[in-house]
Amino acid sequence: MSPDTIAYQGVPGAFSEQAARDFVEDAEPLACPRFEDLFDAVSSGRARWGAVPIENTLAGSVHACYDLLAKHTVTVAAEAVLRISHALIAPRQVPLQDIRRVLSHPMALLQCERFLQENPGIEALAVHDTAAAAQEVICGGRSDTAAIASLRAAEVYAGVVLAENLEDDPMNFTRFLLIARPEERPAEVNRDSRPLKTSLLFRVQNRPAALFEGLRPFALRGINMTKIESRPVRGSRFEYLFYLDAVAPPGREKDLDGAVEALARCSTDLRRLGTYPAAETAAPL
Amino acid sequence: MSPDTIAYQGVPGAFSEQAARDFVEDAEPLACPRFEDLFDAVSSGRARWGAVPIENTLAGSVHACYDLLAKHTVTVAAEAVLRISHALIAPRQVPLQDIRRVLSHPMALLQCERFLQENPGIEALAVHDTAAAAQEVICGGRSDTAAIASLRAAEVYAGVVLAENLEDDPMNFTRFLLIARPEERPAEVNRDSRPLKTSLLFRVQNRPAALFEGLRPFALRGINMTKIESRPVRGSRFEYLFYLDAVAPPGREKDLDGAVEALARCSTDLRRLGTYPAAETAAPL
Repeated sequence: MSPDTIAYQGVPGAFSEQAARDFVEDAEPLACPRFEDLFDAVSSGRARWGAVPIENTLAGSVHACYDLLAKHTVTVAAEAVLRISHALIAPRQVPLQDIRRVLSHPMALLQCERFLQENPGIEALAVHDTAAAAQEVICGGRSDTAAIASLRAAEVYAGVVLAENLEDDPMNFTRFLLIARPEERPAEVNRDSRPLKTSLLFRVQNRPAALFEGLRPFALRGINMTKIESRPVRGSRFEYLFYLDAVAPPGREKDLDGAVEALARCSTDLRRLGTYPAAETAAPL
Repeated sequence: MSPDTIAYQGVPGAFSEQAARDFVEDAEPLACPRFEDLFDAVSSGRARWGAVPIENTLAGSVHACYDLLAKHTVTVAAEAVLRISHALIAPRQVPLQDIRRVLSHPMALLQCERFLQENPGIEALAVHDTAAAAQEVICGGRSDTAAIASLRAAEVYAGVVLAENLEDDPMNFTRFLLIARPEERPAEVNRDSRPLKTSLLFRVQNRPAALFEGLRPFALRGINMTKIESRPVRGSRFEYLFYLDAVAPPGREKDLDGAVEALARCSTDLRRLGTYPAAETAAPL
């Protein structure tokens, strides 16, 4: 196995594979059936890197991936934001009216609801994966069946694009994290001149002022937060899990570290998931 | 039209219909195709009430409904938490092995992924609505086709339940809000002895300490927050929309009002969506 393998969830042509390729261009992508398999591949060293979807502008945080980040001893080395755009892919060029069935992942079908409503003659089949849907449809060769998947899936499986931008909302972006084992953390991160972002997970007792006290160290040091989200802890009505992303301007990493240390003292189970250059992007994540 | 009509999104047998019935037992449920239609029905007075799903333990916040709350002049009068459990429903009793197709909403298919993986001979068809899927399957009468929907849908359309609890994760709860026009706000809310919850929407400039300053009034007055979530504002990289729920102990409503007023002074576009008795429930929302 190449030391520069990057694990992702899905099959070739998946949005996650695109993110994996963008993160580490010369690494060999490793397809994993489930998110658990992706994290196991990185934890065990079978893959040097992993590309993990963490939030989407339409669907919000990917709680399953936050849970796996909490569970595994991995660190976040980078972030990237990918535009999610769905295409209608068929084995060959046919008029749209000929299409009677489309295959895709349930989330993609949900994001293309308007297209499906406007084409009531098309039956929507839910399958495990957008790219696998493209593969199945193209290999199947039926002229009445298409897949909803990425343009890259059309390329990978040599399909024909019947229509593009099927999604109801063009502001459809997914933020991906590049994960690695802690010892793999690339040294070049610290040499980068971009602002540094830190992603945290922590718990706070649901008492007045508990969260407020935890945020004080960031305010005092002039450290910006770019995300905060509470999530009820399973089986507990009085404890909350928080996701927090904070960004330090270049050269102010010591202040970021100080704020995190102070938060650690007034919260429980604080996990610093990683510190990495903040993505420069016009996308709203 | 009955003055005590309650609008919900979906068709009879939908989880939202169940929530609507639980909210106002003697009101007549009004089925609305889309969330927009539900809000229009309440805003225009065609329905006195509306039942709106606002967050789910697995999927997170329903951003579309937050957006509609921000857009419409309605107020939140109550909340309730509903357990979401999926059943396999067929026109008549047949062995599970005979089933070749299931129809359901994409989100329900996503929540029953394990069942679908364990039964690879079953094709999953995405349709607009779980309860509509049950209706279609039961009226269709095919012995190889079933729907994934609520037990109530089986009851409404006189179907047979082949299997229950199909969902991967039993911690599947949806929190619903009861909405009404501001003038319809029931007086009895204030006579209730339960803690009062307030739901807020506001924007904060992404500068250090902006959010921290906004939360200070709650901490100073000993008011608990039960939810806080940031969401990037469309087309803006430097502004965030926040969802915040805060709860005042009985008799401390003045402190809650004071905290909200202080937050209004250091945020923009603050909308107080409503003040209502906090649900007493063991569910984690």
